[in-house]
Amino acid sequence: MASADGSKLWGGRFVGDTDPIMEKFNASIAYDKRMWDADIRGSKAYAKALEKAKLVTAEEKDYILHGMDQIHDEWAKGVFEVKPGDEDIHTANERRLKELIGEPAGKLHTGRSRNDQVVTDMRLWLRDAISILKGNALQLITTMVERAAVEIDVLFPGYTHMQRAQPIRWSHWILSHAVALSRDVEQLQEINRRVNVLPLGSGAIAGTPFNIDREMLRQELAFDDISINSMDATGQRDFIAEFLFWASLCLTHLSKMAEDLMLYSTKEFSFLTLSDAYSTGSSLMPQKKNADSLELIRSKAGRVFGREDKEAMFDCFDTVHAVLQVTTGVVSTLKINPSVMEAALSPDMLATDLAYYLVRKGVPFRDAHGISGKAVFLAESKSIPLNQLTVEDLRTASPLFSSDVSAVWDYSSSVEQYSAPGGTAKSSVAAQVEHMRTWLKKQVQ
Amino acid sequence: MASADGSKLWGGRFVGDTDPIMEKFNASIAYDKRMWDADIRGSKAYAKALEKAKLVTAEEKDYILHGMDQIHDEWAKGVFEVKPGDEDIHTANERRLKELIGEPAGKLHTGRSRNDQVVTDMRLWLRDAISILKGNALQLITTMVERAAVEIDVLFPGYTHMQRAQPIRWSHWILSHAVALSRDVEQLQEINRRVNVLPLGSGAIAGTPFNIDREMLRQELAFDDISINSMDATGQRDFIAEFLFWASLCLTHLSKMAEDLMLYSTKEFSFLTLSDAYSTGSSLMPQKKNADSLELIRSKAGRVFGREDKEAMFDCFDTVHAVLQVTTGVVSTLKINPSVMEAALSPDMLATDLAYYLVRKGVPFRDAHGISGKAVFLAESKSIPLNQLTVEDLRTASPLFSSDVSAVWDYSSSVEQYSAPGGTAKSSVAAQVEHMRTWLKKQVQ
Amino acid sequence: MASADGSKLWGGRFVGDTDPIMEKFNASIAYDKRMWDADIRGSKAYAKALEKAKLVTAEEKDYILHGMDQIHDEWAKGVFEVKPGDEDIHTANERRLKELIGEPAGKLHTGRSRNDQVVTDMRLWLRDAISILKGNALQLITTMVERAAVEIDVLFPGYTHMQRAQPIRWSHWILSHAVALSRDVEQLQEINRRVNVLPLGSGAIAGTPFNIDREMLRQELAFDDISINSMDATGQRDFIAEFLFWASLCLTHLSKMAEDLMLYSTKEFSFLTLSDAYSTGSSLMPQKKNADSLELIRSKAGRVFGREDKEAMFDCFDTVHAVLQVTTGVVSTLKINPSVMEAALSPDMLATDLAYYLVRKGVPFRDAHGISGKAVFLAESKSIPLNQLTVEDLRTASPLFSSDVSAVWDYSSSVEQYSAPGGTAKSSVAAQVEHMRTWLKKQVQ
Amino acid sequence: MASADGSKLWGGRFVGDTDPIMEKFNASIAYDKRMWDADIRGSKAYAKALEKAKLVTAEEKDYILHGMDQIHDEWAKGVFEVKPGDEDIHTANERRLKELIGEPAGKLHTGRSRNDQVVTDMRLWLRDAISILKGNALQLITTMVERAAVEIDVLFPGYTHMQRAQPIRWSHWILSHAVALSRDVEQLQEINRRVNVLPLGSGAIAGTPFNIDREMLRQELAFDDISINSMDATGQRDFIAEFLFWASLCLTHLSKMAEDLMLYSTKEFSFLTLSDAYSTGSSLMPQKKNADSLELIRSKAGRVFGREDKEAMFDCFDTVHAVLQVTTGVVSTLKINPSVMEAALSPDMLATDLAYYLVRKGVPFRDAHGISGKAVFLAESKSIPLNQLTVEDLRTASPLFSSDVSAVWDYSSSVEQYSAPGGTAKSSVAAQVEHMRTWLKKQVQ
Repeated sequence: MASADGSKLWGGRFVGDTDPIMEKFNASIAYDKRMWDADIRGSKAYAKALEKAKLVTAEEKDYILHGMDQIHDEWAKGVFEVKPGDEDIHTANERRLKELIGEPAGKLHTGRSRNDQVVTDMRLWLRDAISILKGNALQLITTMVERAAVEIDVLFPGYTHMQRAQPIRWSHWILSHAVALSRDVEQLQEINRRVNVLPLGSGAIAGTPFNIDREMLRQELAFDDISINSMDATGQRDFIAEFLFWASLCLTHLSKMAEDLMLYSTKEFSFLTLSDAYSTGSSLMPQKKNADSLELIRSKAGRVFGREDKEAMFDCFDTVHAVLQVTTGVVSTLKINPSVMEAALSPDMLATDLAYYLVRKGVPFRDAHGISGKAVFLAESKSIPLNQLTVEDLRTASPLFSSDVSAVWDYSSSVEQYSAPGGTAKSSVAAQVEHMRTWLKKQVQ
Repeated sequence: MASADGSKLWGGRFVGDTDPIMEKFNASIAYDKRMWDADIRGSKAYAKALEKAKLVTAEEKDYILHGMDQIHDEWAKGVFEVKPGDEDIHTANERRLKELIGEPAGKLHTGRSRNDQVVTDMRLWLRDAISILKGNALQLITTMVERAAVEIDVLFPGYTHMQRAQPIRWSHWILSHAVALSRDVEQLQEINRRVNVLPLGSGAIAGTPFNIDREMLRQELAFDDISINSMDATGQRDFIAEFLFWASLCLTHLSKMAEDLMLYSTKEFSFLTLSDAYSTGSSLMPQKKNADSLELIRSKAGRVFGREDKEAMFDCFDTVHAVLQVTTGVVSTLKINPSVMEAALSPDMLATDLAYYLVRKGVPFRDAHGISGKAVFLAESKSIPLNQLTVEDLRTASPLFSSDVSAVWDYSSSVEQYSAPGGTAKSSVAAQVEHMRTWLKKQVQ
Repeated sequence: MASADGSKLWGGRFVGDTDPIMEKFNASIAYDKRMWDADIRGSKAYAKALEKAKLVTAEEKDYILHGMDQIHDEWAKGVFEVKPGDEDIHTANERRLKELIGEPAGKLHTGRSRNDQVVTDMRLWLRDAISILKGNALQLITTMVERAAVEIDVLFPGYTHMQRAQPIRWSHWILSHAVALSRDVEQLQEINRRVNVLPLGSGAIAGTPFNIDREMLRQELAFDDISINSMDATGQRDFIAEFLFWASLCLTHLSKMAEDLMLYSTKEFSFLTLSDAYSTGSSLMPQKKNADSLELIRSKAGRVFGREDKEAMFDCFDTVHAVLQVTTGVVSTLKINPSVMEAALSPDMLATDLAYYLVRKGVPFRDAHGISGKAVFLAESKSIPLNQLTVEDLRTASPLFSSDVSAVWDYSSSVEQYSAPGGTAKSSVAAQVEHMRTWLKKQVQ
Repeated sequence: MASADGSKLWGGRFVGDTDPIMEKFNASIAYDKRMWDADIRGSKAYAKALEKAKLVTAEEKDYILHGMDQIHDEWAKGVFEVKPGDEDIHTANERRLKELIGEPAGKLHTGRSRNDQVVTDMRLWLRDAISILKGNALQLITTMVERAAVEIDVLFPGYTHMQRAQPIRWSHWILSHAVALSRDVEQLQEINRRVNVLPLGSGAIAGTPFNIDREMLRQELAFDDISINSMDATGQRDFIAEFLFWASLCLTHLSKMAEDLMLYSTKEFSFLTLSDAYSTGSSLMPQKKNADSLELIRSKAGRVFGREDKEAMFDCFDTVHAVLQVTTGVVSTLKINPSVMEAALSPDMLATDLAYYLVRKGVPFRDAHGISGKAVFLAESKSIPLNQLTVEDLRTASPLFSSDVSAVWDYSSSVEQYSAPGGTAKSSVAAQVEHMRTWLKKQVQ
């Protein structure tokens, strides 16, 4: 009653060895060939361990190493030929080794499984990728810190909820983003410690049955540690998940910065102008100069990197790699317009300072906040700026106002109040610059 | 004080026209060239509208149409050459048109913006893609429905929470998945109605300023409707978001089915065997025959398709296209083992029937449930199957049991009780088969 | 060797009947009690079906109906007492029924399973929720359409990439968002058709064994259809997934609108002012008036509604319900500043019109775009607005310019060009208003 | 032309002070009251810093501290009354302080902003939460490690792709999950270092203007560090994002373990039985004993914790807190069935060993893999187990087989081969147990 030959009964699409769609569906060579170098390094180290375990002779080992070097050259020169049937980089390299050296190639996989081979290659590849991204991030942070140092005197409005809040330094804004990126670098290094663990010698799930010296493998491949349990080593991709999350967080930081810069570069704000190198035009509107670079940076934060697989790992690296470099370019070439920035400061942004004036005369802050609010309302009613209120006007709100209130209306004095660590006073920002310079020096040691 | 030349002050990585990384970052030609045909169709229709609006002459229009046909041939033959500077398929085609026909090419973009051009192409492309996926889904459903019809007599355990629950028909299980897929097809058609709306003639945001006949464009390109508001038309990608969500839901359905099939194909269940065409081996373990096709199908449900952009649209189509075909292959070629399936039915799965026996004698269901539970406990205590309890044993739980209870222990009778619409009785399942066959016929009309 | 009593060997945290943490973990009464009314309606209909199937007497049915009405009153009055052990709303109501009417309560669950009961209740509840949200959305759309009608004459800059692009009508902007919301309403109705399907009578998985009349249940509960397959009916939550996706898309639309409004309400743009009813202050800065309502609306788009369960369904409804109402409030009370809006229009936004001027004199658009670009550059070099270039200046870019070019510099004429369907000309926007009014009328019929 | 009173023109839903829906929408007291203790601790420390800065007198400080202690008591006793208008825990506590001590309460917020107050409270709360979760995780790991130690001799099939792969130890499986959890604990500690940073003294964005001693605040509140930049300190919620990601990864680990346990507890596998304390029944089927605890644990991995806000933080903590405890309960009380487990080992799982037999005789692994594959095929053709092939049978595949091949068919010997670090040999698993015990000891120091 059941089907001897399903394909006849139910019109199966396909009859034969392996459904070609299935084969294509299953193949990863299109993207995992990027690990060609890692795969060769892993196999060379494994060949040495096989010799030590007496599973290959010294001569066979040398054949393998030499063959692998040839394959390395072919990839490096771009002449390695991927053939039908090479479903992944591992089978491709082994197939080529067999063509080059014959029988000893068949011994290379002894006691190894694709399970531990794949994950070893991924860890080797990602370790290099992390090193590159760390360099990119440090270059960006350096650019930001030095820009902050040079432009430390420029004041402009600090915004919350997109509304003008308090006068701050432009350099304080730059550093707020640099500090976030420095956390990203630190977190990347923590992740790297979990990436840099040797899984080779875990076999499929049970471990390796021959006398393979895992400590020797670790040293050959410069891993920090050896995996503790073979099932965990071959089955988990936590290090990829961690890397993808790290990328999301880092891209979110760059996205937030890009969002601010987009706003500041609108005609309405006019705080800064992007370099032409990072702007594009419109196919329709001749006058348009779009901040496309910023828009792209901003949009990448939303990018979801699928799940914990190789494809996601590569995509993620490429994205962050490009975004960090473009951001460095944008930040290092944009021109600010300090006069417009300072002109955007308005007396109502000193309403907090007006309250603090009263606090210094002993008024509890909650009351001072209310009195200052009344002054704001009074100025709005009279359609004049807050600093144009007379002392008499102010006294209707509180008798404590006297002529010395005029000292409040100074943006430079205002920012200089915030001299506690982390604040926007010049001394505090300069200290942040020094802190970051010291931190940067430590990173490149 | 601010920088005249930022790149000098802060070590900008790049000086020149456009940062090459930015250019690469911004280019989409690598993937959007898949829309070459849609782009050509859109431009041909637009050339006709330009003629009607007297913005090109009849002769110029003919040049454009003829040039576009040549470009079509080049793409179709695989000889179209993408050149540096072709940032997307739209500039590539227009660049080539200029090479082929000269000046009239420069008139093609009159009143059109890349904004309305891109989204028109996307909608044309997606409309075709949806049509293909609908066909794939219908083929899979047909396979499933016909398999259910042929194997309608096979019984096996229905599971909830992975524990044996009640005897059901194998065909009932198949149909439960076919019904979910039929909803997917219906939803895809609803989405298609929102995809199939003409945005061309919306310009960048404000609309089109010349006398472009949008109704004529609609007819030329066989759209159902014209977009209502030009800002909405160029700015929204809801139809992509809908398509991506649809794909997630459809893949979830296929994933659930694959998950069950994986379980049923374990050595421990042994209900069915996959065709070799959909299985793979292990590089280490010679005996392994892995249900890789099912694992791939299952894993695709977790795939997240990023956001509402072209790249996601293409990736999504490719995935669903492959998964539907592989699933059709798997389902049409797997072999079931009816004797093992029926042997897996066990008397405790009839505990509900035992309760119903009492209900039919007037016991409230809640009490009957309790009495049957006691019988289950009694059988477990005696380490015998539930149906080996004597009438005397059963009477310790309720005096209503008598010799006619033996009729309960029949799996066929059990499933035949569920004859209400949607149930697992043969008549009900046969009705479901007919319902689906009728539905399928309607889809292909 | 294995453990007779695991808890002793490995220090199990807990010994007893059911781990209280497990019980709490498993209980859903805290949120699913919101379905009390749906549960009562479902049970009353089921009692009638039981009577028809002769599983309860007419008298027993009346007891059940009467008891359920009493429970309804208790919930409605807020005096229903949830007791320990009531793990969900279904057990709570049945427990109470037993207290009220005794034995017949035990018959209510005959042939029913918690599986079909839960999903029936969810569908009843969601059907009502959808109806409420549709009403909210229609009220918002009405507000927007009428506001667009009243303020149809106000012009302001249309932006792309946050840069000024072309002059458009304020009402055109409003309608672009209203149109998106109208698609949401249509999609909600499509979803409702898939929500409004009766699962009751599907049992746990196999169906219902007694003579339960599912068609009668459908009519009693006003469902449109009956589920086709019992396993699918009890096992799938697609209708929740669809609803959650719908909510994400709708919130994205409201979020985009809020993002624009936030920008327009900055000091730098000053296009509009929010009502105090939708603004909040700062605990520190007395002058602050934050557009918190907009920020909340914007942030909800990112809200992810977990997975397809009841908790997500309730959370999702509450969010969309509040957001739609607050948005209606915001939109109906904000004040625009037409003079500032029109003052923000600048001559460079007419660079496309300048190109069109040449197109009308026979220049291919690609060339006209280039010539207009040169004019933009010339004006920038001279630091004058584009419309201050003399005809002589313009002639250095193209000899086709003559004194009639002055007609280009008129924002009203510019927008009036876009009179094709969907454009920003007054006639086109008025047609959109009429289209939406007609559509709105149809929705409430 | 524009509206003086929008609400009249466009039917605004609401006229008055603040839209009550907006107020409710904006309020967070319903969930953030969980931070009552953190808020009190933060305010007490701040009062001391105010005294040091001479912004309050010693007497005023004492009033504040005493008032805060009273509020602490009210919360601890559950008698604190949240009033309408208390939009969050911070305003609630300050409102109450004013009721208790009058004017000095108004000084508490001097130089502080809700921005730095909120984030300080969140960090204090999360620090405690992390400490609790670390304890939960260590208890679970301890349970697992000790169970592995006791049951080290039990063998069972290791699965890949849900198909039997190689014989392994049950304890090896347990440890593979324990090792993953130990990484979670380590990562949690790294996150804690970034959580445990003082933001207080950052004001709204600019910093704190008075002489507030941030180092004193750090010591009072036992933070490890002081935030570097005030904008970053108040604006970022990275520490929440990190915590949410950590929770996702940890829940994924528990989910994978639960998935295996669900499979092993099916009737078909019968490897283990869950304690009744972690199982539930069915409302319909009297015989059902569902592994609901495992299903709940498994499902939580899919839980998405929204975004980086307080609500997500609380939800996330509650989930992980419950899941870790329930998992500890499940693991410590489940009973394994060693005889069934060992009976599930089948000779085909030794096909790799058969290949290794040949490798030890000098056959390259690739060839040995092929020969063993032939033997598997031969056994299947003869419908006999692999170990029932005679030496003659085996010799048809390779002449190197001799009578010593019989030694291959021993599951214990098979697992003993994997004695390299991380393998499944008894010595290797015992070493893993010791490794974990040492690690655990370090954690609780």
